[in-house]
Amino acid sequence: MRWLLLASSTIVLSWLVGRSLARRRRRRSLRVHFLQKGHGGKSMVGWTPTDEHVDAICRKLSADVVVTSGEDLPKDAVDVLVAAFPTREQLLQVKNSIRALFVPFAGFPPPTRQLIKDMGLDRTLFVCNLHHNAPMTAELAVALGLAACKQVFEADRLLRSNDWSARGIPCDGVPEPLPMLLLQGKTALVVGYGEVGQRVARIMSAFGMQVLATRASASRVELDKHTTVHPPADLISLLPVANIVFLCVPLTSGTSRMLGRRELEMLPKGSVLVNVSRGEVLDEDALYEALCKRENLFAAGIDTWYNYPATSKDIHNTPVSTKNDFSKLSNVIMSPHRGGAVGLQETELARLSAIAEALNLAAEKNDVRAMPCQVDVERGY
Amino acid sequence: MRWLLLASSTIVLSWLVGRSLARRRRRRSLRVHFLQKGHGGKSMVGWTPTDEHVDAICRKLSADVVVTSGEDLPKDAVDVLVAAFPTREQLLQVKNSIRALFVPFAGFPPPTRQLIKDMGLDRTLFVCNLHHNAPMTAELAVALGLAACKQVFEADRLLRSNDWSARGIPCDGVPEPLPMLLLQGKTALVVGYGEVGQRVARIMSAFGMQVLATRASASRVELDKHTTVHPPADLISLLPVANIVFLCVPLTSGTSRMLGRRELEMLPKGSVLVNVSRGEVLDEDALYEALCKRENLFAAGIDTWYNYPATSKDIHNTPVSTKNDFSKLSNVIMSPHRGGAVGLQETELARLSAIAEALNLAAEKNDVRAMPCQVDVERGY
Repeated sequence: MRWLLLASSTIVLSWLVGRSLARRRRRRSLRVHFLQKGHGGKSMVGWTPTDEHVDAICRKLSADVVVTSGEDLPKDAVDVLVAAFPTREQLLQVKNSIRALFVPFAGFPPPTRQLIKDMGLDRTLFVCNLHHNAPMTAELAVALGLAACKQVFEADRLLRSNDWSARGIPCDGVPEPLPMLLLQGKTALVVGYGEVGQRVARIMSAFGMQVLATRASASRVELDKHTTVHPPADLISLLPVANIVFLCVPLTSGTSRMLGRRELEMLPKGSVLVNVSRGEVLDEDALYEALCKRENLFAAGIDTWYNYPATSKDIHNTPVSTKNDFSKLSNVIMSPHRGGAVGLQETELARLSAIAEALNLAAEKNDVRAMPCQVDVERGY
Repeated sequence: MRWLLLASSTIVLSWLVGRSLARRRRRRSLRVHFLQKGHGGKSMVGWTPTDEHVDAICRKLSADVVVTSGEDLPKDAVDVLVAAFPTREQLLQVKNSIRALFVPFAGFPPPTRQLIKDMGLDRTLFVCNLHHNAPMTAELAVALGLAACKQVFEADRLLRSNDWSARGIPCDGVPEPLPMLLLQGKTALVVGYGEVGQRVARIMSAFGMQVLATRASASRVELDKHTTVHPPADLISLLPVANIVFLCVPLTSGTSRMLGRRELEMLPKGSVLVNVSRGEVLDEDALYEALCKRENLFAAGIDTWYNYPATSKDIHNTPVSTKNDFSKLSNVIMSPHRGGAVGLQETELARLSAIAEALNLAAEKNDVRAMPCQVDVERGY
């Protein structure tokens, strides 16, 4: 009896061990490489992980994820390449093993997209990015929009020199108050109803505004809570009623220069424009001209520009444009591409957590397609 | 037959005329006087109707409302006196007939309240005011708060001189970005949950913030949609978790200097303060000191101050304080009491409509107590 028990226990035990080994073997490790520095990007748009970042991410990763990092690719195969601007040579080197390209920020750099298409990887390579800072971008968009609507700067400038004339008191001898755009009961137009746009829409709706939005994937007019979501072709018919416009689209061939002279001239008198997407979405000369004229465009809050510092040495002496002097205009709020709140401790912790979560998910499911925030290479976002 | 028709027509006509007269007699006229200029107010806070305003209101009034206006009171009896700063002599003159004092803006000037109490009118006189510009005030409060949270000014100032250093890019040689307060997941505290405070609470909730509020009339903790409303005594326990504080209370003996050094020291590190109520609510020296220290108070957006232009001649040369030089601080957004958006055409049209609506209601119901926005003279708001 005792022998029988021992024998059967041994059999059960061996079966359990075997099963466990099999399970471990079945789940292959996920090999991830973080490409550091030396990338093909020139505009300082984006983010590249330091050694400290990679260490911090590793501390959050499950044992199934095997990490390498550096300026060069490892000799071994790579499943996931974390990089925004890989070169052709780098992609060629990992072409046979790579299953996913992970862009570690919001957006998908057009040169990288072009490279993937040129190399014929667009059908097989899974591309994903990060939306960890969508709330920060939406918050800055609203902050810029409100500062423009209320002329908070001009009023501050005057009051600092003891001048209260921005204030209105309808009595003899007091000048007209500084104009403001009142929001309640007016209409906000959110161009690009993605992670950022949806948040902006929810906030503007809480101001008692009617909110209209356009979204590339909307094929007909849809109602989403307080927002009416339109296909992009409706943009032209929405602009004439838009008291404040938020540009929250990704940069694609379809959104490049989507707002030009014709579109800005359709805005109603006293309207405000906010751009937190990419400079290329809003035609530079058309914007500058509309701000100078002050006919229908009252003011603008601009976070994304036409000229960027090329290297860290240029950050103190690079104008936002090489053609137009926006710095002379008092009706534009100038913001140095801070939407993503890049570099703030809170944002960076959220970024590292989001990267680790996505990689853990891919390892757990043994499928890189389990990572959230997939990018459609054809569409470009 | 013809005579019969004529006679009966005459009878019917006389009856109709008589009925009409009787109806007009039954509803007594409401006698309203608009006190213009020469009022007892010294601070240019408030609003006094011009002849044009009175004319515009009259065009919206029903025939039952009989209007007079001027610096002096009429010889006849007055039912409703539209005035914010009546003098003792003026109130004595109408004491026997007056049934309501109508303050034509938000708030209730403390000197007027004192006068009413001193004259023993507080039990009999119905006092009401206007909340037509609560949405505008809430919008400016949020605009000032966001500008302070995001340091939109400082970033703009730098970028205008081609300096992108407010932006964060975690790569070698790039300085730390300009700090920002991120809102999602944080806590907003709305002190004074009235017409303005409720709107601010709704907006901040849409940012994904937890919203706490205090309200004088809340005797216990109540849940109002996304906001937890506390009695004023809870303020001290709420301050340590408040990342952004909005002061939206009326000025009363209970709210005067309700935030002093002790309260500001309880705020968490990196917090932001907005005052759109009255300067007296926030202790001046405590505010100035906290802004200079930059220990727990990160920045502030201030719309209501400690020193105001006394007359329209002084609007170009009156500092916001005679003690502290706020204009030297870069972490305060200075706004010249623009919350009410006084003087803007849109606000003024809303004001005139709201005044006419209230008076029409009083005339229609033959009861001045039918006017909305009653002020509790004892409480002072």
